[in-house]
Amino acid sequence: MRLDRTPYDEKLDAILAASARVFAEKGYHNASIRDIARASGVSLSGLYYYFQSKEELLYLIQDHGLGTLLDRLEERLQRVVRPEDKLRVLIRNHLTYFVSNMAQMKVMSHEADSLTGEFKAQVNRKKRRFVDIAGEILNELNPNTDLDLRVSTFALYGMINWLYTWYRAERDPDADVLADTMTRIFIEGYRGNKVDPAMMSEAMLPS
Amino acid sequence: MRLDRTPYDEKLDAILAASARVFAEKGYHNASIRDIARASGVSLSGLYYYFQSKEELLYLIQDHGLGTLLDRLEERLQRVVRPEDKLRVLIRNHLTYFVSNMAQMKVMSHEADSLTGEFKAQVNRKKRRFVDIAGEILNELNPNTDLDLRVSTFALYGMINWLYTWYRAERDPDADVLADTMTRIFIEGYRGNKVDPAMMSEAMLPS
Repeated sequence: MRLDRTPYDEKLDAILAASARVFAEKGYHNASIRDIARASGVSLSGLYYYFQSKEELLYLIQDHGLGTLLDRLEERLQRVVRPEDKLRVLIRNHLTYFVSNMAQMKVMSHEADSLTGEFKAQVNRKKRRFVDIAGEILNELNPNTDLDLRVSTFALYGMINWLYTWYRAERDPDADVLADTMTRIFIEGYRGNKVDPAMMSEAMLPS
Repeated sequence: MRLDRTPYDEKLDAILAASARVFAEKGYHNASIRDIARASGVSLSGLYYYFQSKEELLYLIQDHGLGTLLDRLEERLQRVVRPEDKLRVLIRNHLTYFVSNMAQMKVMSHEADSLTGEFKAQVNRKKRRFVDIAGEILNELNPNTDLDLRVSTFALYGMINWLYTWYRAERDPDADVLADTMTRIFIEGYRGNKVDPAMMSEAMLPS
């Protein structure tokens, strides 16, 4: 948590949370700034003090969500050393945030394609960081595998991000159980697929 | 493949494929029946011979896609016995269809929430079958696990269905490599998480 938060930041957070609920429920394209004003209790002119267009608002929700996730992840990763623990931290970081911010999660996952131009580019730069971080952890977890790293990385994020389509807080386990289940499956699954080093060096000889 | 296909079926297939491309590109809510007419080369009045509303068209795309996937899956599962092979068949069945029907895949995954009422209920009944089939396979694959079955099942489908957000045919491996990677991770991961039977029976004793 940053300590230098201003009343501006606090109000923006509240507007982004209310907007995420509106976008999650009606869909980005169906929602109007008027809906946002109603849900957030901020006047239309008040809203335009924080963003200039509906697309900028969508960008702020996504950038803010990804930024929060990324800050927390990088801080938490500094406290662990083993790749198993890093993967656990990554999965738990995502799922904890998602379960307590279901609307943001849906907007981040579902409306990724609704951004264009520089907004999209900016969000994609943050997403790229998540892909890179996961790739580094998987490499550490099992350097001797022939599993495709890009496919494995997106398999991991798919497992996590798909949550918004099925998770219902009232019937499903909490974030700890979710994280534990996915972590155990993925660690065992990725680490268990080793290539026999003898075979590997043989395959790498010039033919 | 059914042998009793009529010219009506053939034309409907072509309309559904063209419509899926339009919905995948513009989004369901932004697309008009006029866009569909242009993309399919069928007149507006011709289209209304096949469906009565844009929502019915979306339903037909989803129901047709899920129905094809389900028919093929059930047929292919009859030819294998081991749970490992069944899981491989399920994952490959999905990914093969998705890679050759990228637009349908996106519409099926992304526009699930755009259906309402009986259309949604009908599609959800087919989806329920996929959840049940995967759950049965996972139970066979590892009856001695304490992993949550519902979470594991959706982790599996998340891994698969997330494909539409990242897969690019020109740079990524083909469906066989995708299926092989995800199958190896998931089989190893789910089968590897066994509870020690001794501990399990002890935990199940009345305290």
